[in-house]
Amino acid sequence: MATIINNVVVRDIRFPTSQGLHGSDAMNAAPDYSATYVVLETNDPGGLSGHGLTFTIGRGNEICVEAVRSLSYLMLGESLESFTADMRGFWRRITGDSQLRWIGPEKGAIHLATAALVNALWDLWAKSEGKPVWKLLVDMTPEQVVACVNFRYISDAITSDEALDMLRRQADKKAEREQEMREKGYPAYTTSAGWLGYSDDEIRQRCRDAVSGGWTHFKQKVGGDIEDDIRRARLLRSEIGDERTLMMDANQVWDVGQAIDSMKRLAEFRPWWIEEPTSPDDILGHAAIARAVRPLGIGVATGEHCHNQVMFKQLLQANAIDFCQIDSCRLAGVNEIIAVLLMAAKFGVPVCTHAGGVGLCEYVQHLSLFDYIAVSGSLENRILEYVDHLHEHFLDPVVIKDGRYMPPTAPGYSITMRPESLADHQFPQGRVWRV
Amino acid sequence: MATIINNVVVRDIRFPTSQGLHGSDAMNAAPDYSATYVVLETNDPGGLSGHGLTFTIGRGNEICVEAVRSLSYLMLGESLESFTADMRGFWRRITGDSQLRWIGPEKGAIHLATAALVNALWDLWAKSEGKPVWKLLVDMTPEQVVACVNFRYISDAITSDEALDMLRRQADKKAEREQEMREKGYPAYTTSAGWLGYSDDEIRQRCRDAVSGGWTHFKQKVGGDIEDDIRRARLLRSEIGDERTLMMDANQVWDVGQAIDSMKRLAEFRPWWIEEPTSPDDILGHAAIARAVRPLGIGVATGEHCHNQVMFKQLLQANAIDFCQIDSCRLAGVNEIIAVLLMAAKFGVPVCTHAGGVGLCEYVQHLSLFDYIAVSGSLENRILEYVDHLHEHFLDPVVIKDGRYMPPTAPGYSITMRPESLADHQFPQGRVWRV
Repeated sequence: MATIINNVVVRDIRFPTSQGLHGSDAMNAAPDYSATYVVLETNDPGGLSGHGLTFTIGRGNEICVEAVRSLSYLMLGESLESFTADMRGFWRRITGDSQLRWIGPEKGAIHLATAALVNALWDLWAKSEGKPVWKLLVDMTPEQVVACVNFRYISDAITSDEALDMLRRQADKKAEREQEMREKGYPAYTTSAGWLGYSDDEIRQRCRDAVSGGWTHFKQKVGGDIEDDIRRARLLRSEIGDERTLMMDANQVWDVGQAIDSMKRLAEFRPWWIEEPTSPDDILGHAAIARAVRPLGIGVATGEHCHNQVMFKQLLQANAIDFCQIDSCRLAGVNEIIAVLLMAAKFGVPVCTHAGGVGLCEYVQHLSLFDYIAVSGSLENRILEYVDHLHEHFLDPVVIKDGRYMPPTAPGYSITMRPESLADHQFPQGRVWRV
Repeated sequence: MATIINNVVVRDIRFPTSQGLHGSDAMNAAPDYSATYVVLETNDPGGLSGHGLTFTIGRGNEICVEAVRSLSYLMLGESLESFTADMRGFWRRITGDSQLRWIGPEKGAIHLATAALVNALWDLWAKSEGKPVWKLLVDMTPEQVVACVNFRYISDAITSDEALDMLRRQADKKAEREQEMREKGYPAYTTSAGWLGYSDDEIRQRCRDAVSGGWTHFKQKVGGDIEDDIRRARLLRSEIGDERTLMMDANQVWDVGQAIDSMKRLAEFRPWWIEEPTSPDDILGHAAIARAVRPLGIGVATGEHCHNQVMFKQLLQANAIDFCQIDSCRLAGVNEIIAVLLMAAKFGVPVCTHAGGVGLCEYVQHLSLFDYIAVSGSLENRILEYVDHLHEHFLDPVVIKDGRYMPPTAPGYSITMRPESLADHQFPQGRVWRV
């Protein structure tokens, strides 16, 4: 019997994180981590359903909720099997509605909403196969993986034949790498020590906790007053020592010239990368910054606001990034992420997925595992972000051991939230939002 | 007494244009031209109010409506004067809400909605000054114009000092050019002959009407089957003759390589430009296409989907466009448009504003007049789009004489719709939408 999607439920879920300045940075002063949360309900007698979310930081979540409603007619009444039989066609259809496309195209609220729906479909598919999403992906043949990708607008950077060749070259070591991941997990770093809103004392304490927890890579938020940035960099470096790795994240606050000037001053603390030094749309700007800071031993990282595969294509073509930070919700779901993983592998740029927020850690572990096992085949210069917030709301939260993500084992995409968490954080009716 | 904005009304207005395939092209098969229509109501005893809209093509308009609602708290209860005293600050504030910004930033539904509000404020301002928007702009000092612009992320391409110098150099000829415009109007071209959904007979008839109406520039939609494109190009060329100008518009359907191949085949019909040959996000792709087609005498035009000043900056820096087609609603209103006009003038690229849709012709005449009179000071290779639909719904519709836009004289931004048109086209309750 076909599995029919007979209802698309969408909810506005928000966490009042602004109260503790968790997640504060130079651009996002007081975010309320939020999710446009989607459930694809089906006719399955066992209650099979697909869960997905897109991440926002508070106001504006209602716009993504509205966008999910507008898109849902493209999935309602259709069967899971009709989509999985032609994943490229499904993705083209849901990103290509000729009227809805106008308010993107492939960017902003409509693309974020598309991510929630596409990821919910992958969750549904994986659950129906009894596998976590990473394992569903890893078990696909190269032909099946490539059949998920829409090569429109990226064929000048990668063709489906090239992608097939790359995947085939990695195929014979897949089992070995999968075993390695199951034993050791995927390396991670922590952003939990360096939020801009934290006091020096809080940073110091969090650094010590993280060092004793086995973490080796630390990220500092920069882009406020440069003297403050320098003071905090000195503090972080003194706490983590010379042998551990420090990254910096400016969250888009600088112009191109400012970014270069600031990083010249911060270079003495040996940051491994500068993340989001300027506007996420500025491909040529990132390339100019990269040219200026590479001689100082600093790489450029960006991607959490990079809105589609066409933008990533250009960041790679322009040699503008040293680290490719895909976001599981900014891109329109697993299909588009596969396209970017393939391009990054072709251009030899390591993918270090963006996480944090709510649910992003749960999502991206699947993507990094797939990247290592089946696409890039490498862990060199690759590390997955980890933030220690809000995991308690998920049925299958991430498992961290000695600073590494352990592969999830439950079927699906690890994003199903606890019913009581959904009820409490429904905006504005839920318990936490009632005064 | 201060003019206080005491209500922000937003309406979902749609025209059933898909029924006649007006506006059909290779990407947009059946658009219903629509507007997210905003009224800034004030405490003015004479009923002064500011009207603005953002243009969409049907489904998705409800998402922009929701986005206007989310943004409106940034204007409600504030005075017109507090905004006009610091237009740069106003624009930074309405594009910079730290939570709403996440679902852009500065792109997609949130940016389209911002355009409606910003343009409504300009309408309100111009009405309060008793001038059309173009005249309000032309009468500003260079310092006042520059004070509207946010140079964030574009300072590596243009500084406020450079912008001031450019405006000052044009200042002494402003009165002369204004007089010229009042007498002769601004040159235009028509897109009304070449829609993709029209039959050959309809194209032939519309060409003959347009030639006898004094039009000298014609645009053909391409990007369907290449043999069809060639047949229609031959038809258009035979109708308009060798001395008139033909432009082509692919509405984003090609990949980079396809665009180059197609234009090599269409070059024999001597198109002046190829518009939107590929993804609007593909700066490097447009640059590659431009390098390939310039030797054939064809320029590259794009901009109607170019979502912000950072993207236009790069199109100019990369020498990717020969014609800069700003859209009055895709960019976030007059402030951001001024930034792009200044950059285009600095890089020596002519601005040919995008119009059509509903209300876009009404809007952009103001922008092209300002560009000529005060910014670029040139009409060379500049021509304004005209489409002959839906003007009857506006209180002050465009006036075309001998293929030229005559400067509007009524105060405001020419976008106020007739009350009965608003009532009839309200979606889904209005008369035209009731079955």
